[in-house]
Amino acid sequence: MKCLLKNVYYVDGFMDEAGKGDILIDGDSISEIGDHIGTSEDTDVIDCNFNKAIIPGLVNAHTHAAMTLLRGLGEEKPLKEWLEERIWPVEAKLTPQDIYWGTALALMEMASMGVTGFADMYFEMEEVGEAALKFGVRCALSKGIIGTKESDIEKALRLFEYFKDQKLVNVQVGPHAPYTVPIDMYKKLCHMAKEKNIGVHTHFMEAAWERDYLKEKYDMVPVEFLENSGLLSVPLALLAHCVWIEKDEMEKVAVPSVKVAHNPSSNLKLGSGIAPLKDYLKKGVSVCLGTDGAASNNRLDVWEEMRLAALLHKGNELDPTCCKSKEVLKMATFNGARALGFDKVGRIQKSWKADLVVVDLDKPHYVGVEPSNLVQYLVYAGSSSDVVGTMVNGRWIYYYGSYSYKDVEEIKREAKKSRERICS
Amino acid sequence: MKCLLKNVYYVDGFMDEAGKGDILIDGDSISEIGDHIGTSEDTDVIDCNFNKAIIPGLVNAHTHAAMTLLRGLGEEKPLKEWLEERIWPVEAKLTPQDIYWGTALALMEMASMGVTGFADMYFEMEEVGEAALKFGVRCALSKGIIGTKESDIEKALRLFEYFKDQKLVNVQVGPHAPYTVPIDMYKKLCHMAKEKNIGVHTHFMEAAWERDYLKEKYDMVPVEFLENSGLLSVPLALLAHCVWIEKDEMEKVAVPSVKVAHNPSSNLKLGSGIAPLKDYLKKGVSVCLGTDGAASNNRLDVWEEMRLAALLHKGNELDPTCCKSKEVLKMATFNGARALGFDKVGRIQKSWKADLVVVDLDKPHYVGVEPSNLVQYLVYAGSSSDVVGTMVNGRWIYYYGSYSYKDVEEIKREAKKSRERICS
Repeated sequence: MKCLLKNVYYVDGFMDEAGKGDILIDGDSISEIGDHIGTSEDTDVIDCNFNKAIIPGLVNAHTHAAMTLLRGLGEEKPLKEWLEERIWPVEAKLTPQDIYWGTALALMEMASMGVTGFADMYFEMEEVGEAALKFGVRCALSKGIIGTKESDIEKALRLFEYFKDQKLVNVQVGPHAPYTVPIDMYKKLCHMAKEKNIGVHTHFMEAAWERDYLKEKYDMVPVEFLENSGLLSVPLALLAHCVWIEKDEMEKVAVPSVKVAHNPSSNLKLGSGIAPLKDYLKKGVSVCLGTDGAASNNRLDVWEEMRLAALLHKGNELDPTCCKSKEVLKMATFNGARALGFDKVGRIQKSWKADLVVVDLDKPHYVGVEPSNLVQYLVYAGSSSDVVGTMVNGRWIYYYGSYSYKDVEEIKREAKKSRERICS
Repeated sequence: MKCLLKNVYYVDGFMDEAGKGDILIDGDSISEIGDHIGTSEDTDVIDCNFNKAIIPGLVNAHTHAAMTLLRGLGEEKPLKEWLEERIWPVEAKLTPQDIYWGTALALMEMASMGVTGFADMYFEMEEVGEAALKFGVRCALSKGIIGTKESDIEKALRLFEYFKDQKLVNVQVGPHAPYTVPIDMYKKLCHMAKEKNIGVHTHFMEAAWERDYLKEKYDMVPVEFLENSGLLSVPLALLAHCVWIEKDEMEKVAVPSVKVAHNPSSNLKLGSGIAPLKDYLKKGVSVCLGTDGAASNNRLDVWEEMRLAALLHKGNELDPTCCKSKEVLKMATFNGARALGFDKVGRIQKSWKADLVVVDLDKPHYVGVEPSNLVQYLVYAGSSSDVVGTMVNGRWIYYYGSYSYKDVEEIKREAKKSRERICS
């Protein structure tokens, strides 16, 4: 089955000006881009009349999807109280089934907002992967590891084996953070990741006190920890947050294997701070975008993170020229896909995977849009509510209110039940 | 004609917990709130089945609505270049008709997002008011004044006369800013405002250099300028931005007649900085929310400003407990209505004006919502795309995609034509 998106504008994070024409999808990939592409009998033709834009799928490069079940708990509390009194006691009650329904609920939300891939760190990750496969969404899965249990290394290996034949799923190794996992355990996990040729996903320098912790415990600055833990020698190190990296330390993270996941909403909401995005971009660090979990955002809206990333640093640095919309679109798409370990995903290019979002331009806030300013309109004036279609690997997972997932009402029902039980 | 909103949750910026029941609207006001309210034959009954929330209408307390026509021009340029090369030359081409269509386009966008009132400073304000009246939206209008022309005082008076019988329109006096209007002109305008018992709407301390300007030109700090210009003795002074007020100066603005319009998106986008909202709230300053014009935001989405105001300062101040959702909802509703000069607007209360928004809770991101956390869900997880109905003064201006304005397609068509002409 082929699909022809006819008469569209299209743009990705590498283009200064939008293209105009038709996009043909054959199987899982974009097979042709051009004017007046011919069709055969088995082609599903969608004429977009030049009031739709096609962009690459958005990637949520750091989240804990099942935390939709914990959304809104302990709002506006100090961090320690929030975690210890509201989040952890409730998380302790989560069953594998809860994780499945919580993740499915997150996927429902994300699919409608144009998210085609996500990097998830949580527990019961088989359930997370099963939900993702049911939706047909691309993902990178890591079991969050705390402490030094050897059995966790085994579990990480088992997760890798479980999904190794799934094209849409990459498994990564997930040491939680330097303050919950000793450096020797990082070394073991990084060694394993190198052996299996997979990525490592970890929290890194989210809050200011983590710098002091490393100094006291190991007499190291953050980048020394990266070096000594093995994180700089794994095939891919996805570092979530990186709010507190100093300017003179950034060169160490400006290497192709390191991916920094910027989570502006979550960093603001938890009072963690404002990451130095302007400097990361200047130094050539590969930055992607994440929402973090729904308990600390509380949306799973990568579009919102795009807009916020594009605005926040202009104001914080008093520089309206930094963090340009084109860079931010690249972060949310291509860079995100790379951070999940996928190649040929995140651009509108012939032979690249068909992970695409259809954006409705027939709205009042798009009056004035043209090929030369489409990216700016999307990032500054647009929002996730402009999304009318989301395609992953050549398949619609969301289209005008309908989902590929059969019974989304069941998801809401079951998630509600889980929520009620864990909060009772 | 009466309207009964049956089986709803309702909350405003004064309530810790949402109410549950029915709301009866009679004429322009809320006439009853309670359980199982009886109906008569002339009552339009809408059963919301407890999956809708009613909140007070959102107020955009600082904007230049017709600037929808300038959206996206000169993005990511330094401020001076943006204004002098892209904005001002295009603004010079605007005709009264353009202002009408640009404003109507803004109202289309705002109505669908739950905005029931706006404070506008621009030119050709009769056109702005006519568009607002056609939509049936509440507004405060001020002609932006630059320089010292006596004829501008006459024009401001004529605007006041023009709309003085319109219940939905308040006229305010609009000296542009202390760096474009000499202090003697401020004195004359404030004198006139006092005489007519109307408000003054002005830009104030948007960029850091404005402090230096006042020091050099008048040897004054900002609050001394407020005192000496007459702005502290008018019935209502709506000060847009106030990014650069020092902590020890805030007591002067913490008086009932002064309203600070916080515009977080615009302040970030233009690289102006981050206003000290946490301190304003602590000192008891009356703060409302604005989007500013669509050329510097680029949305007219008060809900987005609510979310941003609630997040931004937590991160900037490293304090997750500040700028609480309830305070921010009050800023976006009640405080905004007061800043526009309207009484009994902005609460869900018997005998208050029926400026209301209907929010659809039947969405995945509202799983887990209950009366005790509704405000937090709305501010942190919700967005303007959850709005399904917007009512002003007892009349629906937007309801499930339909507008009170007869021909919204004409608005888009005419606005497009205006845009093309002014940009050619």
